[in-house]
Amino acid sequence: MSREQLSQSIEDYLLRLPLPARPERLYAPIAYSLAGGGKRVRPLVVGMACELFGGKAADALPLAAAIEVFHNFTLLHDDIMDNAPTRRGKPAVHARWSTNIAILSGDVMLIEAYKLLAMSSAHLPALLNEFNRMGAEVCEGQQLDIDFEERDEVSLDQYREMIALKTAALIARAAKMGAMVGGAAGQELERMYRFGHQLGLAFQLRDDLLDTYGQMAALGKKVGGDIIEGKKNFLAVTALAMGAADERAELLRLLHDRTTPEGERVERVRTIYDRLGIRRITEERIDTHTALALEALDQIGRPDNELRELALEMVGRNR
Amino acid sequence: MSREQLSQSIEDYLLRLPLPARPERLYAPIAYSLAGGGKRVRPLVVGMACELFGGKAADALPLAAAIEVFHNFTLLHDDIMDNAPTRRGKPAVHARWSTNIAILSGDVMLIEAYKLLAMSSAHLPALLNEFNRMGAEVCEGQQLDIDFEERDEVSLDQYREMIALKTAALIARAAKMGAMVGGAAGQELERMYRFGHQLGLAFQLRDDLLDTYGQMAALGKKVGGDIIEGKKNFLAVTALAMGAADERAELLRLLHDRTTPEGERVERVRTIYDRLGIRRITEERIDTHTALALEALDQIGRPDNELRELALEMVGRNR
Repeated sequence: MSREQLSQSIEDYLLRLPLPARPERLYAPIAYSLAGGGKRVRPLVVGMACELFGGKAADALPLAAAIEVFHNFTLLHDDIMDNAPTRRGKPAVHARWSTNIAILSGDVMLIEAYKLLAMSSAHLPALLNEFNRMGAEVCEGQQLDIDFEERDEVSLDQYREMIALKTAALIARAAKMGAMVGGAAGQELERMYRFGHQLGLAFQLRDDLLDTYGQMAALGKKVGGDIIEGKKNFLAVTALAMGAADERAELLRLLHDRTTPEGERVERVRTIYDRLGIRRITEERIDTHTALALEALDQIGRPDNELRELALEMVGRNR
Repeated sequence: MSREQLSQSIEDYLLRLPLPARPERLYAPIAYSLAGGGKRVRPLVVGMACELFGGKAADALPLAAAIEVFHNFTLLHDDIMDNAPTRRGKPAVHARWSTNIAILSGDVMLIEAYKLLAMSSAHLPALLNEFNRMGAEVCEGQQLDIDFEERDEVSLDQYREMIALKTAALIARAAKMGAMVGGAAGQELERMYRFGHQLGLAFQLRDDLLDTYGQMAALGKKVGGDIIEGKKNFLAVTALAMGAADERAELLRLLHDRTTPEGERVERVRTIYDRLGIRRITEERIDTHTALALEALDQIGRPDNELRELALEMVGRNR
């Protein structure tokens, strides 16, 4: 299946999920979330990983959808926890309906993901175990993220552990589970996991970078959001690890400052980052993780351009 | 296994779940919830249903625990939605930690339930499908319950649909899934489902009855809670269906009244119920559902005292 066909199949599959019509406020937010777009990179990884080992992408569609539905479930509940008013330019579910609706709709969305997973019954015991581990890891990552917001001291290792759970676990297990459906086994599965893990780390760092240095038009959200919310992303953690005592103190103050105008806070944090060369360091780290991801993919020894191309796109290195 | 042994095995299993220690605030609320007690009737149904068909109760323990963990997950999220400060005499998770912690801990608790379910790998595709349907049904029931609070008109049929989803689905599928692990098939599974469904309806009506006519000591919570919260339980819905226009208007007013002292509201609602004979009607309805449950159990044609005894206990008819 070509990339365009796969994208279209995933989109069709997601928008035609046989969701019950009632209770209306329980199921409408699921269709609303899934219609919100997004790049669908996780289901693309699933479909391409399946095809890499000679499987038919069509057989991986329920799994691909399960992972995308799971991902959107986490966004729905994260938006409540972060009190985020919008998601992809539309009101978040808790803002459009209510917090209670968002909690309960999210719950049934997680169950819906398991319903989709159950459709891959041929590979079921193994897939269910992977999916369960993935689910727990993502929750653990989200909890660490919350914990970090309340702390000044976050080491780079701790940050990497957090994003390995919160972001990379989903992509690593998407790659591995897609490969399972395609018929891969043993070392092939480990390599696919490694590919997805490294790609996931690079993908998150790219996200962190764009949050500070991206363009609003491409981003679809406000530039500097992480700084405004005082989030300890890769840039902040690296700057805190590298800066002198006074830079460190100023950075912490700016991250927690709620009185200085937002634009000024973003500008002043960016000045510190620029002085310390954080942008370059982040780009180099993205390249390192990307190289490790592609190395794992190469070790599988199957010529593939689709998955490689997608990986480069995900980390903004496809030009 | 005797009833006492089964109870003890379930308790041991639940209190020794291999939960990760970290992130502490993610997993501690799970252990806290499970240590909170409860009658464990759902896992008992699972174990006894398994034994009824010659299976070993020990083989059903992971499934029994999966269902109890799922049940406690629903309580955890329900308590957020209902803004309930306590659960079984202890602070609710959202009150003891925070709403965000309760959302995320509940999420990982649901995933934990699926991890336990995955341990019954021999029966997996079928069990997973049942469990998924059960999960969706319980969420649907909770949504209907929320919808009903905002409405004056709730028919008895609508109320029964709601409790069939919110309460009976869990017990029906617990009975059916326990029987699956025990080796039952075909019509036996349908009868176990019917047994659990009718028992679940009776169990919920008994709960509704005790809420108004129970003793606080036995209840472990305030008598009249449903009246105070304006919940349309079986007693309220029946009274609204039977009362004359003026009784109906007074009852609706009392249910939504937030100015009259709580004790007086409970007393005055009880007076209306007494006048209409609601207590007796509810008791008769409990007996009808219980008889239907036992009829389904009898049709299976296996002599059993444990499950029958448990059923009678659950509906308060074991004297």
